[in-house]
Amino acid sequence: MAGTQTPAAAGGNGVAIIVYKSTFDIAMMPMMIAQGALAMGMEVSIFYTFFGLNAIKKGFNPKLPGMWSLFTGMIKKKMASHKVRPYDEMLRDCIARGAKVYGCSTSMAVMGVTKDQLVDGIEIAGVATMLDMAADAGTMLTFG
Amino acid sequence: MAGTQTPAAAGGNGVAIIVYKSTFDIAMMPMMIAQGALAMGMEVSIFYTFFGLNAIKKGFNPKLPGMWSLFTGMIKKKMASHKVRPYDEMLRDCIARGAKVYGCSTSMAVMGVTKDQLVDGIEIAGVATMLDMAADAGTMLTFG
Amino acid sequence: MAGTQTPAAAGGNGVAIIVYKSTFDIAMMPMMIAQGALAMGMEVSIFYTFFGLNAIKKGFNPKLPGMWSLFTGMIKKKMASHKVRPYDEMLRDCIARGAKVYGCSTSMAVMGVTKDQLVDGIEIAGVATMLDMAADAGTMLTFG
Repeated sequence: MAGTQTPAAAGGNGVAIIVYKSTFDIAMMPMMIAQGALAMGMEVSIFYTFFGLNAIKKGFNPKLPGMWSLFTGMIKKKMASHKVRPYDEMLRDCIARGAKVYGCSTSMAVMGVTKDQLVDGIEIAGVATMLDMAADAGTMLTFG
Repeated sequence: MAGTQTPAAAGGNGVAIIVYKSTFDIAMMPMMIAQGALAMGMEVSIFYTFFGLNAIKKGFNPKLPGMWSLFTGMIKKKMASHKVRPYDEMLRDCIARGAKVYGCSTSMAVMGVTKDQLVDGIEIAGVATMLDMAADAGTMLTFG
Repeated sequence: MAGTQTPAAAGGNGVAIIVYKSTFDIAMMPMMIAQGALAMGMEVSIFYTFFGLNAIKKGFNPKLPGMWSLFTGMIKKKMASHKVRPYDEMLRDCIARGAKVYGCSTSMAVMGVTKDQLVDGIEIAGVATMLDMAADAGTMLTFG
């Protein structure tokens, strides 16, 4: 799955992201950053935990938070007109291009989410993997 | 604009911040961190995206989230009594002292925000700039 | 307090965390990461600021955000069944095992929180300490 990553990406030239909520704004940011980073030849790894886990379930349809949720459709159209691709398309594309995407094992157990409910190509991992991915990456981001 | 930064600040001695919401608490944190970092001779760059974009519009008046918003005035007074300066004053001061402040180009396009609506001295940038600023900084923080 | 940390932990092999909210999900994440990091021999430092300050007050009982708060008890039971220990026990244990835990001095002053209201072993610190802890750590995370 990491076949498209350049050797130069090892040892710090990567982006690691933790996502812990799943509203539209939160879900989109790691995707847009991942797309940019992959285009620049960087390694990308994303770890989804707690409420963030929803964002990697098949058929997930993100909405803006609170009262803003009513405007989600309008914002999606607006983003599409500015060449931002739909969320699920970007997620599948990131995985196909070599991004490592993880679902948090503890969150999955607690919320009763199984691997087959997750988008294809996503791996299950725990805190140790997340700390490793953070240590390996030059840039570490959290969104939630 | 980066004229006050020391040469020693290059190569890791800097703070890069992404801000993606704009309630009072979220808006204040990067300002207080920036003030401290600039005083210590560190480079500072801040990238405002999604809901965070509001925080760099002229005339922005941050409020605490949800029901806490009713207490915003009280908290602002309390902070002033502890020598914390008003938000807009700190933002202008950070820029004047060499902090690089960016508005996310995609967010601006989607929300219909133009450069003249932003506080003077703020630049427009995309994901590539944000990844560069993260790679250059020793410390990367996200607030939202 | 840092007696259990290995020398190898100096100069980058550490985790620094800023916590700026205090719902159950936000409070738990740094604890679970800290437990994992301490088990791997890493240095851990956590800085609690703004709404995050609540999470280090004695007797703090975290709840899930918004309407989810009704399900907090159910989730806690579920987590306990998956060997996740209670929040307050993990916090005290992290401190006992050498994690450095800080309450933000400005937040404490503004919210009128005193040191004796905080869990034993927690230190009071400002932005300069937080920037130092971030510069020393290889991995920097924010949760809120």
